[in-house]
Amino acid sequence: MASTPNGAAAATSSAAGGVPPVDKEVDFANYFCTYAYLYHQKEMLCDRVRMDAYHSAVFRNPHHFRGKVVLDVGTGSGILAIWSAQAGARKVYAVEATNVAEHARELVRANGVADIVEVIQGTMEDIVLPEKVDVIISEWMGYYLLRESMFDSVICARDRWLNPGGVMYPSHARMWLAPIQSGLGDKKMEDFDLAMNDWNLFVEDTQSYYGVNMNALTKAYRAEHEKFYLKSSIWNNLHPNQVIGQPAVIKEMDCLTATVEEIQEVRAQVSLPINRDRTRVAALAGWFDVHFRGSQQNPAAEEVELNTAPDENGGTHWGQQVFLLTPSLRANEGDSINVSFSMVRSKENHRLMDMDFTYELQESSGKKLPAISTKIFLE
Amino acid sequence: MASTPNGAAAATSSAAGGVPPVDKEVDFANYFCTYAYLYHQKEMLCDRVRMDAYHSAVFRNPHHFRGKVVLDVGTGSGILAIWSAQAGARKVYAVEATNVAEHARELVRANGVADIVEVIQGTMEDIVLPEKVDVIISEWMGYYLLRESMFDSVICARDRWLNPGGVMYPSHARMWLAPIQSGLGDKKMEDFDLAMNDWNLFVEDTQSYYGVNMNALTKAYRAEHEKFYLKSSIWNNLHPNQVIGQPAVIKEMDCLTATVEEIQEVRAQVSLPINRDRTRVAALAGWFDVHFRGSQQNPAAEEVELNTAPDENGGTHWGQQVFLLTPSLRANEGDSINVSFSMVRSKENHRLMDMDFTYELQESSGKKLPAISTKIFLE
Repeated sequence: MASTPNGAAAATSSAAGGVPPVDKEVDFANYFCTYAYLYHQKEMLCDRVRMDAYHSAVFRNPHHFRGKVVLDVGTGSGILAIWSAQAGARKVYAVEATNVAEHARELVRANGVADIVEVIQGTMEDIVLPEKVDVIISEWMGYYLLRESMFDSVICARDRWLNPGGVMYPSHARMWLAPIQSGLGDKKMEDFDLAMNDWNLFVEDTQSYYGVNMNALTKAYRAEHEKFYLKSSIWNNLHPNQVIGQPAVIKEMDCLTATVEEIQEVRAQVSLPINRDRTRVAALAGWFDVHFRGSQQNPAAEEVELNTAPDENGGTHWGQQVFLLTPSLRANEGDSINVSFSMVRSKENHRLMDMDFTYELQESSGKKLPAISTKIFLE
Repeated sequence: MASTPNGAAAATSSAAGGVPPVDKEVDFANYFCTYAYLYHQKEMLCDRVRMDAYHSAVFRNPHHFRGKVVLDVGTGSGILAIWSAQAGARKVYAVEATNVAEHARELVRANGVADIVEVIQGTMEDIVLPEKVDVIISEWMGYYLLRESMFDSVICARDRWLNPGGVMYPSHARMWLAPIQSGLGDKKMEDFDLAMNDWNLFVEDTQSYYGVNMNALTKAYRAEHEKFYLKSSIWNNLHPNQVIGQPAVIKEMDCLTATVEEIQEVRAQVSLPINRDRTRVAALAGWFDVHFRGSQQNPAAEEVELNTAPDENGGTHWGQQVFLLTPSLRANEGDSINVSFSMVRSKENHRLMDMDFTYELQESSGKKLPAISTKIFLE
């Protein structure tokens, strides 16, 4: 027996049915510790699209920061808190759950803003601030926006600590879905077939060498590997050429008013027009964008966008998420893919997502092919 | 922010000093879930050295099994329990903590031994058996024998359930240490240097593009990466040619009498004679073997060995563990490496190990070079 640490996506098995309570210790072990590594912080700090968007948002809107009280939720290395101070904030509370808080404190000191930025180690749900704040800034977005469920903590921060008339950075967020062409599905299917061939040889060998019939587990092995190869969302930085139809917004959120309820379960029905002839829709791809617009009462001087759509000039560390369609669909310009989408949190780990897709091809003539349903796991 | 599951080796930060209590839920999330995958079970079931040893141990010693009551600790897929039944056991209790227990039950049924093998899902510490047992069989060995600390559960099983005169499968275990030559250290040092160069560029860029001085974190980044590249034990299947001196046993254990205390902290002092001229000792390597000898009262008819030493005919899934010596030592035939070794459980996770090595070259003339100390983490 020798286990390799493997990410432990599904943590504890939960009792059947309902949303299980979150075990804080397990959650911490599985989630927060990742962010305790400087390696991981650096990866995010090297994401130019991410950095430029937040940097512009702050420094092109100094009126939101000058003389104001700012709360940075999940400060990590402290960069957003330091920028807020540099932009003129009177006080910045920088909250961080992991031991990276110590590094944030060092950086704050080394950058001469220790009189303004106060780093507080704790979870947003537990800590207490001495005052309300004018701005909440946070980089909370996970894969396909909602993975990690970190926005819950931002909502908690907002409801407890944001002054009336205060602004959220970012202020808005959207999730997108688009049809794509990709060789990933074929590759994964090949890998899956190889894995099953390998299993079949293993069953034969174990019978002949060791007198044990393993065939009873073939069905479970197939299900485990089908999930891994074909039903798991795949990280990718796509080229815009791969997008072969009109992307659609499947969720739009005002960060000032969004609730945990509305992100616990996201449902959408969209029709995605195909704009390429004789093409194959191998997958749907998901990405997000967020905007920094301030609020209606207190708008941004200059609006900034952070977009993680496929971009020929290079990607972000978020990339896009690819949801394989098995089987894929042959389509032509003028056809549409009708998609029913739902995304709920995984019962085993509330930071991961279970998605259901029902998709059907509607030909330009109006004729619909039979609908197909598939589950995809964003782990 | 987007975290990739990364294994979460160091789970929760513990209060300073002493051995922290084990949080069962965190432990379960980090450890057991790995074994719930059939993929991982298959990897172990495909390890021919492992399989052949246990198969031979059981079927060449049927007198230990015929008509006897057997307990399999951590049965996994159930293979050892099924073999025990096939070898004639009257009753087999097969204990498994993870959901793999369900698969074990299926296999037991499919192999026609459901009347003999009872699969019990639970931890050894919690479950209750209706009777004492004559044999405890278990494949509990982790990397370098003790990683995972699973032998604790075997000791618990033995102390609670083994009949006087009962036998342990395996009955004995040994840990080995040997000097090796390897290019791994140079490669890792190169990777470490690249990582630090990359960091230095990042510090410059972040200052010039984003006005933040990251240099305060350079020391911490270096420490994090030094640990990762140079101070972490490395899995490898070595060729016997790489062993350039006499291996030494640093720990020997009788499974019938071993205590948790004696494996919580392993200390040894050994002298490793070099048997190659003009060589470079780049690392020490660790591996283990276990033996199936029965007990003094009730010896095996045929002793069987499971050896994970470097082998030109191929390795095991355990491989060997490579502990880099930085700096390495130039040595000649007739020299010796004197090593003081200690291994204790990591404070953050009792299933991982922190090792201390102090090593010095003793030349054939008797002259000793200055001793060097290094920490290595087995994670």
